[in-house]
Amino acid sequence: MGKLLIKGATVITVESHDSVINGGEIAIEGRNIVSVGPAGSAPEGFVPDRTVDASGMLALPGFVNTHTHAAMTLLRSYADDLPLMKWLEEKIWPLEARLEEEDVYWGTLLCCLEMIRSGTTTFADMYFFMDQTARAVEKSGMRADLSRGMIGVGPEAQQALDYVPGFVDRWHGRAGGRITVRLGPHAPYTCPPDYLKKVIDLAGKLDVGIHIHLAETRTEVEDMARLYGMTPIQLVDSVGLFELPVLAAHCVHLNEKDIEIMARKRVGVAHNPESNMKLASGVAPVTKMLEAGVTVGLGTDGAASNNNLDMLEEMRSAALLQKVSTMDPLALPSFQALSMATAGGAGALGMGDRLGLLKEGFRADIILIETRKPHLFPRNDWMAHLVYAAQSADVHTVIIDGNIVMEGRRVLTIDEDEVYDQVQRRAERLVAGK
Amino acid sequence: MGKLLIKGATVITVESHDSVINGGEIAIEGRNIVSVGPAGSAPEGFVPDRTVDASGMLALPGFVNTHTHAAMTLLRSYADDLPLMKWLEEKIWPLEARLEEEDVYWGTLLCCLEMIRSGTTTFADMYFFMDQTARAVEKSGMRADLSRGMIGVGPEAQQALDYVPGFVDRWHGRAGGRITVRLGPHAPYTCPPDYLKKVIDLAGKLDVGIHIHLAETRTEVEDMARLYGMTPIQLVDSVGLFELPVLAAHCVHLNEKDIEIMARKRVGVAHNPESNMKLASGVAPVTKMLEAGVTVGLGTDGAASNNNLDMLEEMRSAALLQKVSTMDPLALPSFQALSMATAGGAGALGMGDRLGLLKEGFRADIILIETRKPHLFPRNDWMAHLVYAAQSADVHTVIIDGNIVMEGRRVLTIDEDEVYDQVQRRAERLVAGK
Repeated sequence: MGKLLIKGATVITVESHDSVINGGEIAIEGRNIVSVGPAGSAPEGFVPDRTVDASGMLALPGFVNTHTHAAMTLLRSYADDLPLMKWLEEKIWPLEARLEEEDVYWGTLLCCLEMIRSGTTTFADMYFFMDQTARAVEKSGMRADLSRGMIGVGPEAQQALDYVPGFVDRWHGRAGGRITVRLGPHAPYTCPPDYLKKVIDLAGKLDVGIHIHLAETRTEVEDMARLYGMTPIQLVDSVGLFELPVLAAHCVHLNEKDIEIMARKRVGVAHNPESNMKLASGVAPVTKMLEAGVTVGLGTDGAASNNNLDMLEEMRSAALLQKVSTMDPLALPSFQALSMATAGGAGALGMGDRLGLLKEGFRADIILIETRKPHLFPRNDWMAHLVYAAQSADVHTVIIDGNIVMEGRRVLTIDEDEVYDQVQRRAERLVAGK
Repeated sequence: MGKLLIKGATVITVESHDSVINGGEIAIEGRNIVSVGPAGSAPEGFVPDRTVDASGMLALPGFVNTHTHAAMTLLRSYADDLPLMKWLEEKIWPLEARLEEEDVYWGTLLCCLEMIRSGTTTFADMYFFMDQTARAVEKSGMRADLSRGMIGVGPEAQQALDYVPGFVDRWHGRAGGRITVRLGPHAPYTCPPDYLKKVIDLAGKLDVGIHIHLAETRTEVEDMARLYGMTPIQLVDSVGLFELPVLAAHCVHLNEKDIEIMARKRVGVAHNPESNMKLASGVAPVTKMLEAGVTVGLGTDGAASNNNLDMLEEMRSAALLQKVSTMDPLALPSFQALSMATAGGAGALGMGDRLGLLKEGFRADIILIETRKPHLFPRNDWMAHLVYAAQSADVHTVIIDGNIVMEGRRVLTIDEDEVYDQVQRRAERLVAGK
């Protein structure tokens, strides 16, 4: 197993606001961190195959993007500033109907390229042609939790149920353990209770979790109340969804009982502030969820509704949005925002025991951030710098599962030119209606 | 006069969403643009001293940051996530009381470095030791509109009135016309009506405009109502402030009559969405102001309350915040946000006849943006890419007043290492209480 030593970094373990080690050292063996501490703290007899000089850099856990639709990079900036239904019915759905399997592969590879370059090491995805997504993730070196989106009406409903066992078999725990799989019932308004029950049964049999959109818009809450007399949260709880590990995206429109249920049933939340802002969905009660003990991670959502996949920016937006929406400048302080983007996300994915902190025994998913940038001077408080001032182009090196995937901003696993050419040609074909 | 030709760019003139010229060409003579058009459109007989190949780049007007406190870069991330009065009284004011003249020079130079690197070519500033600010601006090559902040109570009140005539004389129209000066009465709650009248008289005599904070917080509106029975806008209007050219920062808490007055009196507004979010001041009614015909520009505010000076990010935040706060995904579409950051800002500064557009006769304040970045693929809509996906590290070249100030991300006017060293030492002294 390869041994890697990172030396001279300012190590931000994300265990607390003050767990910052100046001139710190991280020893890595294979896929795991074996020690984190001050200079000279590597285990006795640890002889690295390679030493990375991280002087002048911050080392922190890679970001965990808890909700996206990777291949939607193909639709980035294709249809913006439109009303939701016009956007979906006239733009997004017709174009998605033309998507081919290889489009999803290349769109996902572009997503991975952008994510690696902005310090994300793990993401949770929901889309279709998911074998292609998995292929791209495997190639990129990233870690991902993949869900086939399932719509519970029309011929698609049964096709999705038929597809997932094979997908779980082919990819769950594969790519050296970097890929995990969930079932992805899209949302309560597209998956009626009977269908949800089938999905729950199947997930239980396959021993995998669930990734679902919940309580994203006011309309969804009103429709569920009219149809079932329940909130989206209470509806899915009533059919037993929360007996499984659940990653719930958005969770914007919640009442107190919803939040209590989510805390008790240990639902992981993917908070997507920029998507919620851009689509005018509303502001998720993140502060209230955190107070109630709900595990909240951050997500970018797909590039068609953001329009980038930049977790540093998303952290900042999350913090600023909570402050202004609660009219409390103390809401979601910098450490809490950073924690959401790392340990919180790992927890929401059920991987809090091995991802999201720089800690002995955890996976070596580590990013190095350059600090010799005007917007990071003077050096007052690294946590505030990271959340309120840093930008993704400051990310210098990315290590995933013990492997260096980007170094000096050069991504080693993906041919950038090939991706740009493929994506541009495919997007032009799709927009031309072919 | 030097002649410069920019060739091969995708030119975004910001005259309308559709005024995009592929493979365009911009001819510059001295400080001015002499032509903007397709390849071969430069005037007959135009022989450039230098040609810039901008293939694969976007060319657009430099950003106009309409409100900041440049030297507050020294206080970046020094005191975050605190209640406003604790922040001011225990942290910011004691530290500002220790600021020396040279601190303001180096703090401003760091600000200019960060702004140039993020595509800002003009900024409006309010602070103290403003001769030092002007020195730094002159050195940096930037364009700036400078105001000495004036507090109308205590010994400081008269000192400020005594200082400004000399400051106007020394700097208004200087640095080759790149520096203009205003008077900077801080706000209605720090400048009582009698003092404001003195400032207005003096500004009239000196023939300069005003830069002021207005209606930033709910507390300010309540206090002005209690003391004077008027809104901040109506109060300053009643003493004649709006008979002068006024740049009004924030304008968060407005009623319909306020907006009507501001439109009629042609008040320029500096909207600072990230500062308003971070300090939990509230959400400015930007959409309503624009509908009423108010000229609105964008600003970052100082680095102590943002914590960067990144106008691309500020554009995105402005657009997203309007959408979610009005619950309308069509609010502040991409072109309007870009226009606010350029032409709108120029208009708010009373410079709309020469800045903010790429247009014959306008000043050559131009930025080039690299597009071969994963977050800018595929090429669907440049306006949406710029506002919703681009980042400041994509800015490749910056031209101000016809001079190349940054090229290939290297700033030519400022010694970065010297600035970092000076700023770091000075910040450490200030924080140590010296």
